[in-house]
Amino acid sequence: MAGSPTEEVAFRGDDIIRDYIEKYSNWGRWGEDDELGALNHVGPEQIRAAAALVRIGKAVSMGLPLDLKGPQSGGFRANPLNMMTATGTDYLAGKQAVLPGGFGPSKGFGFSDDVLVTPNQAGTQWDSLAHIFWKGRMYNGFDAGHVTAGGSTRCGVEVLRESFVMRGVLLDVARHHGVDCLEPGYPISADHLDATASAQGVEIHTGDAIIVRTGMTETRRGNWGEYNGGPAPGLSLHTAPWLHAHDIAAIATDTWGCEVRPNEIDLFQPLHVVALVNMGIPFGEIWDLQAIGEDCAQDGTYEFLLSAAPLPITGAAGSPLNPLAIK
Amino acid sequence: MAGSPTEEVAFRGDDIIRDYIEKYSNWGRWGEDDELGALNHVGPEQIRAAAALVRIGKAVSMGLPLDLKGPQSGGFRANPLNMMTATGTDYLAGKQAVLPGGFGPSKGFGFSDDVLVTPNQAGTQWDSLAHIFWKGRMYNGFDAGHVTAGGSTRCGVEVLRESFVMRGVLLDVARHHGVDCLEPGYPISADHLDATASAQGVEIHTGDAIIVRTGMTETRRGNWGEYNGGPAPGLSLHTAPWLHAHDIAAIATDTWGCEVRPNEIDLFQPLHVVALVNMGIPFGEIWDLQAIGEDCAQDGTYEFLLSAAPLPITGAAGSPLNPLAIK
Amino acid sequence: MAGSPTEEVAFRGDDIIRDYIEKYSNWGRWGEDDELGALNHVGPEQIRAAAALVRIGKAVSMGLPLDLKGPQSGGFRANPLNMMTATGTDYLAGKQAVLPGGFGPSKGFGFSDDVLVTPNQAGTQWDSLAHIFWKGRMYNGFDAGHVTAGGSTRCGVEVLRESFVMRGVLLDVARHHGVDCLEPGYPISADHLDATASAQGVEIHTGDAIIVRTGMTETRRGNWGEYNGGPAPGLSLHTAPWLHAHDIAAIATDTWGCEVRPNEIDLFQPLHVVALVNMGIPFGEIWDLQAIGEDCAQDGTYEFLLSAAPLPITGAAGSPLNPLAIK
Amino acid sequence: MAGSPTEEVAFRGDDIIRDYIEKYSNWGRWGEDDELGALNHVGPEQIRAAAALVRIGKAVSMGLPLDLKGPQSGGFRANPLNMMTATGTDYLAGKQAVLPGGFGPSKGFGFSDDVLVTPNQAGTQWDSLAHIFWKGRMYNGFDAGHVTAGGSTRCGVEVLRESFVMRGVLLDVARHHGVDCLEPGYPISADHLDATASAQGVEIHTGDAIIVRTGMTETRRGNWGEYNGGPAPGLSLHTAPWLHAHDIAAIATDTWGCEVRPNEIDLFQPLHVVALVNMGIPFGEIWDLQAIGEDCAQDGTYEFLLSAAPLPITGAAGSPLNPLAIK
Repeated sequence: MAGSPTEEVAFRGDDIIRDYIEKYSNWGRWGEDDELGALNHVGPEQIRAAAALVRIGKAVSMGLPLDLKGPQSGGFRANPLNMMTATGTDYLAGKQAVLPGGFGPSKGFGFSDDVLVTPNQAGTQWDSLAHIFWKGRMYNGFDAGHVTAGGSTRCGVEVLRESFVMRGVLLDVARHHGVDCLEPGYPISADHLDATASAQGVEIHTGDAIIVRTGMTETRRGNWGEYNGGPAPGLSLHTAPWLHAHDIAAIATDTWGCEVRPNEIDLFQPLHVVALVNMGIPFGEIWDLQAIGEDCAQDGTYEFLLSAAPLPITGAAGSPLNPLAIK
Repeated sequence: MAGSPTEEVAFRGDDIIRDYIEKYSNWGRWGEDDELGALNHVGPEQIRAAAALVRIGKAVSMGLPLDLKGPQSGGFRANPLNMMTATGTDYLAGKQAVLPGGFGPSKGFGFSDDVLVTPNQAGTQWDSLAHIFWKGRMYNGFDAGHVTAGGSTRCGVEVLRESFVMRGVLLDVARHHGVDCLEPGYPISADHLDATASAQGVEIHTGDAIIVRTGMTETRRGNWGEYNGGPAPGLSLHTAPWLHAHDIAAIATDTWGCEVRPNEIDLFQPLHVVALVNMGIPFGEIWDLQAIGEDCAQDGTYEFLLSAAPLPITGAAGSPLNPLAIK
Repeated sequence: MAGSPTEEVAFRGDDIIRDYIEKYSNWGRWGEDDELGALNHVGPEQIRAAAALVRIGKAVSMGLPLDLKGPQSGGFRANPLNMMTATGTDYLAGKQAVLPGGFGPSKGFGFSDDVLVTPNQAGTQWDSLAHIFWKGRMYNGFDAGHVTAGGSTRCGVEVLRESFVMRGVLLDVARHHGVDCLEPGYPISADHLDATASAQGVEIHTGDAIIVRTGMTETRRGNWGEYNGGPAPGLSLHTAPWLHAHDIAAIATDTWGCEVRPNEIDLFQPLHVVALVNMGIPFGEIWDLQAIGEDCAQDGTYEFLLSAAPLPITGAAGSPLNPLAIK
Repeated sequence: MAGSPTEEVAFRGDDIIRDYIEKYSNWGRWGEDDELGALNHVGPEQIRAAAALVRIGKAVSMGLPLDLKGPQSGGFRANPLNMMTATGTDYLAGKQAVLPGGFGPSKGFGFSDDVLVTPNQAGTQWDSLAHIFWKGRMYNGFDAGHVTAGGSTRCGVEVLRESFVMRGVLLDVARHHGVDCLEPGYPISADHLDATASAQGVEIHTGDAIIVRTGMTETRRGNWGEYNGGPAPGLSLHTAPWLHAHDIAAIATDTWGCEVRPNEIDLFQPLHVVALVNMGIPFGEIWDLQAIGEDCAQDGTYEFLLSAAPLPITGAAGSPLNPLAIK
């Protein structure tokens, strides 16, 4: 058990956290009731510009399949489990139950059906702005106590149900570095982001979602090992000023936690604290960037219309999703 | 229990079914291995044209919230249940468990987390092409036996993960008829669809998703009664020729089953048999069309970029989703 | 939302509650760390005496089947849902997946398997002593804050895993009253209990579980209506002195909440407050007493060895179970 | 995928299987509709005799806790997951939701509640007689096709809901061998069982449940490694004649599969085929025999009243349970 979250605790790096929060916090910036955070950077102009990026006419999925082959190894979260409650084999054997109300199957008609059990953050996901707390509060200063066993009455993932249509920019740091996968523990700096963007010939605009490829999901696929919760390459805490300067609306990576692990200071996931809690930037994790990485490398175009709506799960801390890059 | 699905059974209307299937089946049209069905109508040209419809820069969700207030009343399917496995109240009380690996919470850091249990077709959904069988087969003649307790090895919803970016056209039949909600049992005919489109000033193109508003979800909201599985307005079986003639790629409605109920012939959900199984058209059900209905009525524009990716649940018969109309 | 649980609120009947608690509370009686409550009344002597009641050699189940036909109607709790993850139809069709590690099926071998999703209190259940709180505390004064999203660290149902082997006495109040089912709202008084016991020729002993039959489960079976959460016959709040005087260790009924509903004072489930929270008596609810009622009526023996272990679900507020009356 | 289950396949040991089945099958022995199998050996006389074994007055649980610390490592089956839908921390914070119908919390009243998701065979379990098939059939020749996605219409675990009150005999083979745990791959023979019984001074009677301790659950606890599905000590296939000769009604062990692994012939779990499918003996697996092992060693009494009812999960292949040894 942890102690009181509002107790002042000194640790290595607390000065950095305080400094970044003081400089970059967006609490109150869009009103005291705001629950959209950095997604406020995405307005009609940004959406229109993003749609104008659709020049080829194709969609590339960045969603990992939801099944038992996912990266979870039990313990904190399990892999998605989809269970069939009606099958074709039953139907062919003449043994499919007739539904309540006398519905199906009969005279040749049959069906299949299923039930999904999944931690919302087992695979490709958005963290909602209710997912992380700092010193008793979530984004915009809302009390963490809004999140009860009944879900969150503030910043649940459903409030973002219309917010993830935007320009997406893939920053393929792994490919820019010439490696299949960045090393676990490798911190991706603001300079790396700039150098990658520059090499790719892409500029960052207000309201972009930046999607950072480390190569980790595809190189661990099927043999996940410590993928989930273990050491990982990822964004440095010190990208916070860069995220602020560029008015980034959302970030996503192909790792379990976006940030470099182990963390750079003595605080668990400090970029979540600065960027998600204080700047209001939702984090996308465990995205599958293999296909979009290859696609962008092939056509040299690293920008696209990102359509990445979460499920509107009322009060949820996160949501599984199937993010699409539309070119 | 039903008898063998391949046994020939005579019933009122079997001649119609046979006729429609003979004329409109798409089995083999896109190759014997095809699992995309009518979504093959959506090519790069259609996607580019759809993206060009984004003139305002906004997204309207057509997804019902996933929670216990949904339309299911127990029995066959339950409502979505989202359960919090970490809460803000625990965190504030200093009682949030430290994660495996010594992760959070500490020094002010905390989090919330959750697990979703939901029938894939409890709320706003796509039926995959593995959801319905006819005489032992699913779309394109694939044996129903591909769907086992392990899921479907053909036409599972995950094969459609990149297929639902397209032009969407709202056909607001209820509003065109000047009613809040069409009557249960009211069959929407091809003529109704044409008249509505005409009045709305919109044409139907190859590869469109048509989204038919009956008014039912919004008028039953919160007091669902027999909404789910009960009598409903919906598409007439006799829209099949129209769907074929217009090369429709997908259909969706704000009712539980797209089709008029009770059905017009002595077969359960005959349009599913003709259009989903034989034409390969995925059905979207329990979409929430209140907001998009009001929006289109207001600006007079009934076409938009539809972004409606399912979750890539491996082998699933369907998927919950949050469909977006982007204008 | 309710206000603070420790705020003093006056209501009709608060004097009764205060009086009963003052007189009958068992907090501290068995030590300040005790988590067994009234089950402490059951010692070796009681267990031996209970076993000596096995004179015929048969077991009668008092457990409702766990399936979708249960009494829950959605909303707060759903019915148990058991889903098959491996079926015989798949196996017969030669389509059963080989398990990880190359295990089965092969050479004629096959199997079935399943996953259960159930609220612990959806059907036949024990309420653990962590299920109900009063003014911030559970049994023995343990702070309610012991129950977090991770479960309860005090009085979880698992601490009772060896405690429900005891003498059970059926008090068939419905049959004694000559009715199939007592009326909803009918309060069963201490006098009713005594009269029933006397008519049945059975005495109450220290450490007994009393099992009170109202007839409700069997008369509502399959057509539950308002069974769950609705008006019900049940124990009067004023049986508290009787429960105390007889050193009752556990009580169970064939209704959803043991107590008469509506309640007799302006407090929700006041007998839970007095007897479960303060006396430490676990409540068994939604027991199916049809078979045991008929059995006891037939042989005139209303006492038996009760074996009613909960599942040892760590930290749980309750547990489904299959209670057996062994005669 | 496996081939047809009724195809004749030759393999090393098929002659043994055929021989044992021919000699020891109980199909038809108790009627062609029988679903109780070897539990028919337990009659009133056996139950009375078992109850007479209660001489001390105590119960010892043999059930592993149902929680995330269980032996499952993901993949085929997950560990039990209990989720709180109402907590004490919420209640204390004044944030517990009022239930439908205006029920609690108020005026000091509060509650906790939870939902369990568990594979029925994730931990301490009974395999029902519908769990294993051989050449297309389950116990008593019932077609495997009785087990559909809707559960089993024959031999589901619920038919055994009154059948597990009987004499239990612990055969502590590990302790008799003077080891903490028998080696993985060590086959326990009929001679071992006899020698252990003899050394313990206990005789085997008709209708007994034999509970065989290998030491595996307790020595792997908390560090399960390959416990589940991996190599294990266990009953030899060649105990089948012994099980038959002694009219054993049920067997249970502290391993995941009762049988020695790897198996002794080229068939997966051949003792399941002979004893469960053909003799109708239910298998109890992943029982926690540490406490009962120590208890029996201490008092020298290895026989007891076993009360081991499954949950009556309709049509289930198995059930979690909390088996009690009552002395």
